[in-house]
Amino acid sequence: MATLEDVLSTIDAEQGAALDRLFALLAIPSVSAVPANFPDCARAADWLAHELDDLGFEAARHDTPGRPMVVGSAKAKTRDAPSLLFYGHYDVQPADPLELWTTPPFEPRLADGPNGKRILGRGACDDKGQLMTFLEACRAFRRNGGLPCNVTVLFEGEEETGSPSLPAFLTANAKALKADLALVCDTGMWDAATPAITTMLRGLAYEEVTLHAANRDLHSGLYGGAAINPIRVLARILADLHDANGAVTLPGFYDGVEELPEDVAEQWRGLDFDDDKFLGDVGLSVPAGEKGRTALEMIWSRPTCDVNGIVGGYTGAGAKTVLPAKASAKISFRLVGKQNPERIVQSFRAFVKARLPADVRAEFGSHSSSPAITLPANSEAVRRASRALEAEWGRPAALIGSGGSIPVVGSLKRELGMDSLMVGFGLADDNLHSPNEKYELTSFHKGARSWARILAALAA
Amino acid sequence: MATLEDVLSTIDAEQGAALDRLFALLAIPSVSAVPANFPDCARAADWLAHELDDLGFEAARHDTPGRPMVVGSAKAKTRDAPSLLFYGHYDVQPADPLELWTTPPFEPRLADGPNGKRILGRGACDDKGQLMTFLEACRAFRRNGGLPCNVTVLFEGEEETGSPSLPAFLTANAKALKADLALVCDTGMWDAATPAITTMLRGLAYEEVTLHAANRDLHSGLYGGAAINPIRVLARILADLHDANGAVTLPGFYDGVEELPEDVAEQWRGLDFDDDKFLGDVGLSVPAGEKGRTALEMIWSRPTCDVNGIVGGYTGAGAKTVLPAKASAKISFRLVGKQNPERIVQSFRAFVKARLPADVRAEFGSHSSSPAITLPANSEAVRRASRALEAEWGRPAALIGSGGSIPVVGSLKRELGMDSLMVGFGLADDNLHSPNEKYELTSFHKGARSWARILAALAA
Repeated sequence: MATLEDVLSTIDAEQGAALDRLFALLAIPSVSAVPANFPDCARAADWLAHELDDLGFEAARHDTPGRPMVVGSAKAKTRDAPSLLFYGHYDVQPADPLELWTTPPFEPRLADGPNGKRILGRGACDDKGQLMTFLEACRAFRRNGGLPCNVTVLFEGEEETGSPSLPAFLTANAKALKADLALVCDTGMWDAATPAITTMLRGLAYEEVTLHAANRDLHSGLYGGAAINPIRVLARILADLHDANGAVTLPGFYDGVEELPEDVAEQWRGLDFDDDKFLGDVGLSVPAGEKGRTALEMIWSRPTCDVNGIVGGYTGAGAKTVLPAKASAKISFRLVGKQNPERIVQSFRAFVKARLPADVRAEFGSHSSSPAITLPANSEAVRRASRALEAEWGRPAALIGSGGSIPVVGSLKRELGMDSLMVGFGLADDNLHSPNEKYELTSFHKGARSWARILAALAA
Repeated sequence: MATLEDVLSTIDAEQGAALDRLFALLAIPSVSAVPANFPDCARAADWLAHELDDLGFEAARHDTPGRPMVVGSAKAKTRDAPSLLFYGHYDVQPADPLELWTTPPFEPRLADGPNGKRILGRGACDDKGQLMTFLEACRAFRRNGGLPCNVTVLFEGEEETGSPSLPAFLTANAKALKADLALVCDTGMWDAATPAITTMLRGLAYEEVTLHAANRDLHSGLYGGAAINPIRVLARILADLHDANGAVTLPGFYDGVEELPEDVAEQWRGLDFDDDKFLGDVGLSVPAGEKGRTALEMIWSRPTCDVNGIVGGYTGAGAKTVLPAKASAKISFRLVGKQNPERIVQSFRAFVKARLPADVRAEFGSHSSSPAITLPANSEAVRRASRALEAEWGRPAALIGSGGSIPVVGSLKRELGMDSLMVGFGLADDNLHSPNEKYELTSFHKGARSWARILAALAA
């Protein structure tokens, strides 16, 4: 009977073929935010359904009001094995600004980096590279007699746009999806040498507001002074969202935000997070959040308000003396503790409306809304996964927070009552959501080996 | 010998052919702000040089560091006639947002409107329709024995981008261009029935600022809170530019701004400007400038600060959780009285720099800079032109201000010591710089007749 070592050897032997498979998936521009790419999203879903089929899963694409889901399931080789639900997403962020990419975003390739070879392309890490680590582990088990656990796989195509179809899909397919534990591969390592299990996630409320003033764009000479400028109104509102100490001014914003428990604070101090390096790597030097907080607190345990995009008037080359009819901004709030996303959205909208002068009207839209998540850090699953990761990487796994949001973790808890084990192999410099996204070849290869070890550990 | 009546009859008889000529010029997308349209600018210049040639002018295209100039000259049929320099510009504003046009911007056509037929297309008024009124008057004189004045024509192709090549060109060609009086056709009527001569123009200083923060776009979950957001910094700076009463807060901004002389104020009151209609026509109701000023003061005699464009982060459809590396804005100041554009630009840049937090750097660019202009309202030329306009339209010409800027008027004064007579036939609802620009067919036809009368009056 095949051993875990056999499975790991298969993964090692399959490295070239595994990379070919990942490149095929990366070449599909499955950008869920852009309607022109919706057919590509469907193509990526079909590719994954076919891949699962090839791995011996019973797999199918399931259409939703948005992008399709892919679900596949395979039985363990033994009876009474635990059941697992693995989650990943095949959709990717828009690639713009295209001119800042050094290689075409949807023409994946290998390049040399300081940590050895790296995989370049949109989605190389987030989340195509990550989800393929799990499928490669499954493939290696299949070549060696079968899976040690009952595995259901769920891939969605709307993670980057707030997962609008996910909650209803989970509820409608509860029977097929419910398992003892969910595995989510959409997070990072502590550093290039240290694996991590993520136990805290910030929530997210993402709003869009458009201010409308005149019924058309006006000549700024002929109307300037007399006609209200919606960019000016928007700038004032955005400026008012923070006070001089960097705190968010929305009424009730900090309701449900608690100070970090001393044991967690103590563990975080032990991580020796280097503020200077963290910021220095991206060309910054001073933590920009609330005064008196460390950078790690700012990104893991404190809420934020950020403007993710703003546009109004003429933005092309040169000058245009226009006084625009409208201006809009995308504004998101990262949430922690027990902050209530709906109440924060309401507070934000009231805040905007209270600042509208005569002749200006606000139009709102919501892109996503999910509360923060804190998972038990001392469960049996976390202990087993920690040992498996330590065996692969030669170092204990760090238990960390994440400033990002993974809506599925909240949905799985709410809709199916399941906890998630969040293990991933991304690094801070992977350029998620930026030009030149990459994934270390080591992350891809040892990631697959890590999942093989974790599956074996959970089955033991 | 042909009389003025003969000339006017020729203009009437030529209406259809005149429209064909204008449509040919309007079909050329000579957008000076957009590099892709530079060849179209050259085509428009060539078209005009050819047209002048056809009218018996000695004409040529003159290349500059930017878009070409066109200069043509023709002698009067009599000796000792006065010399005139006519100015117009063949470049047009960008047509975007294209989706708001009801007809393609560079496929000119006639349509019905409340004041009869109207000409639709980018540049229909500003300034192709306007400059062609003068050429049609010249054509009619040529058909009837020749021009009553010595006429030099100067067409530029950079008016919409701040006329960067103009001052040097005027200086280098002073001998050819210097005349007794300049005629500028780039302004409007008082209303559809009342002609106007413009004697006050606001100046313009147009700046662009880009704030740079991180060395790349960041994930707002992984960095949000700790990394400075340049949109937030920009919003704060823009919000700070006005106080609660609508006044501009730049130090020294109001230096050189004077209250209106009582005789001018009295004349303006006589114009019975209707604030409610002026704003109501564009969907607004409340004058948005400095408290305690009328809308007419706000647009003719008070300075402004407006944001003409802003962009940063993700501005496409849907959501992207990006924390952008940069954000930029185009900001223009309309100037009056003796405000000094250079000092205002310096004050603005210092204002921005004083508000930059750690890790944020500002990059500046200037798009144009010209002081305000006030011309003598009681000169012989103004009196003669007034009578000519009254003869054509049946009503006295209004002496008005304009909130817009026409850099050439200042340049002609500074470089060549010439005053300008500003007469034009645009209307407030012509959608200059907006989608669906139009020019009344009446403006085009009676505009040509008006110029014929003015040329005859100036020669008498």
